Amino acid sequence: MHDDSQPAPPAPLKTPGYFVVFEGGDGSGKSTQVNAVCRWLESQGRETVRTREPGGTELAERIRELLLDPRHAPVDSVTEALLFAAARSTHVRTVISPALERGAVVVSDRFLDSSLAYQGVGRDLGEDWVSTINDRAVNGTLPDLTVVLDLPVDEARRRRETREQAAAGTTDRIEAEGEDFQHRLREVFLRRASAAPERYLVLDARASVEDLTAQIQQRIAHDLDHPDAAVSTATGGDR
Amino acid sequence: MHDDSQPAPPAPLKTPGYFVVFEGGDGSGKSTQVNAVCRWLESQGRETVRTREPGGTELAERIRELLLDPRHAPVDSVTEALLFAAARSTHVRTVISPALERGAVVVSDRFLDSSLAYQGVGRDLGEDWVSTINDRAVNGTLPDLTVVLDLPVDEARRRRETREQAAAGTTDRIEAEGEDFQHRLREVFLRRASAAPERYLVLDARASVEDLTAQIQQRIAHDLDHPDAAVSTATGGDR
Repeated sequence: MHDDSQPAPPAPLKTPGYFVVFEGGDGSGKSTQVNAVCRWLESQGRETVRTREPGGTELAERIRELLLDPRHAPVDSVTEALLFAAARSTHVRTVISPALERGAVVVSDRFLDSSLAYQGVGRDLGEDWVSTINDRAVNGTLPDLTVVLDLPVDEARRRRETREQAAAGTTDRIEAEGEDFQHRLREVFLRRASAAPERYLVLDARASVEDLTAQIQQRIAHDLDHPDAAVSTATGGDR
Repeated sequence: MHDDSQPAPPAPLKTPGYFVVFEGGDGSGKSTQVNAVCRWLESQGRETVRTREPGGTELAERIRELLLDPRHAPVDSVTEALLFAAARSTHVRTVISPALERGAVVVSDRFLDSSLAYQGVGRDLGEDWVSTINDRAVNGTLPDLTVVLDLPVDEARRRRETREQAAAGTTDRIEAEGEDFQHRLREVFLRRASAAPERYLVLDARASVEDLTAQIQQRIAHDLDHPDAAVSTATGGDR
């Protein structure tokens, strides 16, 4: 389908709203930054819709339960990828797209790039096939900005271990993967970001929480102040 | 993807077992014939695995519950198609393929053709897209024989009405469709059968139960007695 090893991800459809996605490995601090950016957006008087994947709607949360339930382990990778795409399809149509159409800012903890990384590369299904099954699921609803909280794999492991000790070892099925898997995921996020830098913000997640929050706020504030510039840059970068 | 308006459905992978699928609209008598053929196969000393779609495994039955639950109505057609494909993927890998590999006869109430008809044509998603998302779900595990219990749409409606009166009006979401939808479904089954007649048995479902059972048994007995002939005919019919 692609004739280039680093195709630019497709550009989002133009909407009155703004769609920002947080990606990164487990332990990279996504939840903390999602909380901070949502509080800040609300303090600016912006309608802010906070959501996550898999999940975000009643049906998608029930699909999430099926995916994360260790009683179904091992769910084969093809079934897993189709379930993630189904959850995303209802999430886009029920929550994300209507919010963007009415001008809200939508902040999602994970989105399509997680599927391309986890199922496409991590599970060896290929980014092309995962793209194809997700194509109609997202239906043009793609992030205006993806914030990648990038963490070296050994640092991510240390953070997970600390968290697991605190939670008495309740690792869920998807987190229970090896370091090679984590390396391959990281490479997908960095590669996609480098192919469309105008729609990505890659941050070293070892920086302080406050410093990360400040950089994210600065970028979002700039994009919200220059909506036409952001869209025309994005369109120019796409083929 | 196809350059022909009536491409032959792909041929099944050769296995030591035999995979027979029953298709047809609601009220066509599929359950009755599935029961009869399973009893007969077991009386012949054949290992027989009776199953159904969506469903057939614990995970797939939970996906079926999500799909048929009127509380989630309306589930959009893209989400519905992806959930059916996910359920099929786990069904094939957990139940159908292992049974065929050990030489069993697998009898399923509905399979891929139902998705091509209901989602591809009935919901206007296109048979090509539904084929693509199901391609890795079935992974070459396709029916050796599909029995189509064909019923004119007005007769199917009369049967459904009778059944609904008996069940005090408990129509589920997927059955609650109009006659145009039923006409389009019927055409898909008949068109696919005419493109690969060596792997389809189309029967007029207005015939008596006993007559239908006899015709189905005769065809399956013939195929089981001539496994190589059936496979080579099927392969010859594919491009």
